[in-house]
Amino acid sequence: MSLAEFALIDRIRARTAEREDVLLGIGDDAALLQPRPNEHLVVTADTLNGGVHFPDDTASFDIGWKTLAVNLSDLAAMGARPAWCTLAMSLPDASPDWIESFADGFFALADEHAIALVGGDTTRGPLSLSVTAMGQVARGQALRRDRAQVGDDIWVSGTLGDAAGALQLWQRGELNVATATLLADYEALRLRLLRPIPRVTLGLRLRAFAHAAVDISDGLLADLGHIAARSGVGAEVDADALPLSAALRGVLGRDAARDCALRGGDDYELCFTAAADQRDALHALAESLRLPLTRIGRIVDGQGVQCEGERGPGGYQHFAD
Amino acid sequence: MSLAEFALIDRIRARTAEREDVLLGIGDDAALLQPRPNEHLVVTADTLNGGVHFPDDTASFDIGWKTLAVNLSDLAAMGARPAWCTLAMSLPDASPDWIESFADGFFALADEHAIALVGGDTTRGPLSLSVTAMGQVARGQALRRDRAQVGDDIWVSGTLGDAAGALQLWQRGELNVATATLLADYEALRLRLLRPIPRVTLGLRLRAFAHAAVDISDGLLADLGHIAARSGVGAEVDADALPLSAALRGVLGRDAARDCALRGGDDYELCFTAAADQRDALHALAESLRLPLTRIGRIVDGQGVQCEGERGPGGYQHFAD
Repeated sequence: MSLAEFALIDRIRARTAEREDVLLGIGDDAALLQPRPNEHLVVTADTLNGGVHFPDDTASFDIGWKTLAVNLSDLAAMGARPAWCTLAMSLPDASPDWIESFADGFFALADEHAIALVGGDTTRGPLSLSVTAMGQVARGQALRRDRAQVGDDIWVSGTLGDAAGALQLWQRGELNVATATLLADYEALRLRLLRPIPRVTLGLRLRAFAHAAVDISDGLLADLGHIAARSGVGAEVDADALPLSAALRGVLGRDAARDCALRGGDDYELCFTAAADQRDALHALAESLRLPLTRIGRIVDGQGVQCEGERGPGGYQHFAD
Repeated sequence: MSLAEFALIDRIRARTAEREDVLLGIGDDAALLQPRPNEHLVVTADTLNGGVHFPDDTASFDIGWKTLAVNLSDLAAMGARPAWCTLAMSLPDASPDWIESFADGFFALADEHAIALVGGDTTRGPLSLSVTAMGQVARGQALRRDRAQVGDDIWVSGTLGDAAGALQLWQRGELNVATATLLADYEALRLRLLRPIPRVTLGLRLRAFAHAAVDISDGLLADLGHIAARSGVGAEVDADALPLSAALRGVLGRDAARDCALRGGDDYELCFTAAADQRDALHALAESLRLPLTRIGRIVDGQGVQCEGERGPGGYQHFAD
């Protein structure tokens, strides 16, 4: 390790949350952790690369935030409580200011969920950030993709398509030339792309209600397709029921907005299935979390995802097996 | 995820070891694992980048091997038994053959230590491989850097400097132009650089004998310096006692070989301290493991690492605090 790496690690170590279950954090060959008895360990790993997963001119605070957010979102989709993470950073020629601001974004979210950074390394190279996040869930309570049952309702949290809409505008350069009347909409969409909110609390609460869950990172149709495939069932989505933000509709119009909601990734909302007799409970949960939960379809016999209201033969479009 | 990524993940998933404590492996939002009761979790993360941590023309089998080896070495230095790992791969334009051979190397070592790959992702970009490895150790039994005691002997496993020697020769282009008489030596050194053997079994056995341990990845002086600093003690090394391979001495000569042993990284041997009354037990352990264990110095009052026999004022050279 270089001296610069030591200095960076010292700075990052000083920032990380203290947890009683971290017996030995950064600074030895490995971290020493105390898992909770009678709980399962939940582990996920996700990488963000500059120019691929975010535009090259993204602010480093936002990169730090999103690097952790996409991993917390996977823990949320399992109903797990975040505990620890590692971070492997490949940095080109990052200034101390860049790193400080990256750490500000990373730890703003880490502290909110009391997740401790317990290891990692830095290397020199094109910007790339890999996190492995670990969480815990009581035995038998994890949310999985393979537990959807025929007759379940399909639900999503929040609004869909905002991140994809923001990315489209960014790529067309329109985020910088917005007129004053549209600026608030643009800004709302931009925040959805840059600072996704992992639905950790929702995931924890859904353990009592949901049969199957997934986070929406590749797009609703693709990710719901994973639930269908792994559960051996089909899924029908009502395109008219998709929760679209006013900002997305205002900026893109209804058809393009719906397309973003179906196919756009990066929303990091949760998609889950639950028995029909849970509707009242889920509406109450939405109110208590101040987070919209919208019923968008149902689990059926068969396979693949079909979408009512989308153009296609017979009003149905068949997307994926 | 792209279709190519799914195919790659399917291929890798089919290769990974089955473990009873993996309740849900690759294929959901996260893996679901069953930690052993009354054990601590040991977590480490290390990245290898092409052109930085290995020459660009390294065979992909060797890259796969080394990617896991450097992480298993950290678990070994903690006295932990390997359990699970994640792998984040950034690949430039890897052919199926390249990936297959990478997986061959990775899983050859993974299977040897029964470690299961439970998550990860692939992205397109310059070659970079990040592993987070998880192991387990009974409470209170982990080997740490901060437990060296004044009066302890300092020991190292195997021979030192071989990897650094091979790298020097590689960089000078001499690995390809060796005369027949030197070829065997070159090959021996090259294997030490490309296929480091993580000392996992040694680490497990050392829990009964060692006070402090570290793996030698940055060089003996640097890594022993970590033990000294974290334990609040000094270390004296006898340069004449360093275990040098016949191959290294034959190819580089004694002085250059010693320099590689002191300052060269990438050997992934263990350096540890133990009370003087453990000498017989450690010699017996060396015999039973068929792995040399060599006493190279002692822990003293003070700070930093001093090396007897090295040029420098008074025959001592003071290296690090």
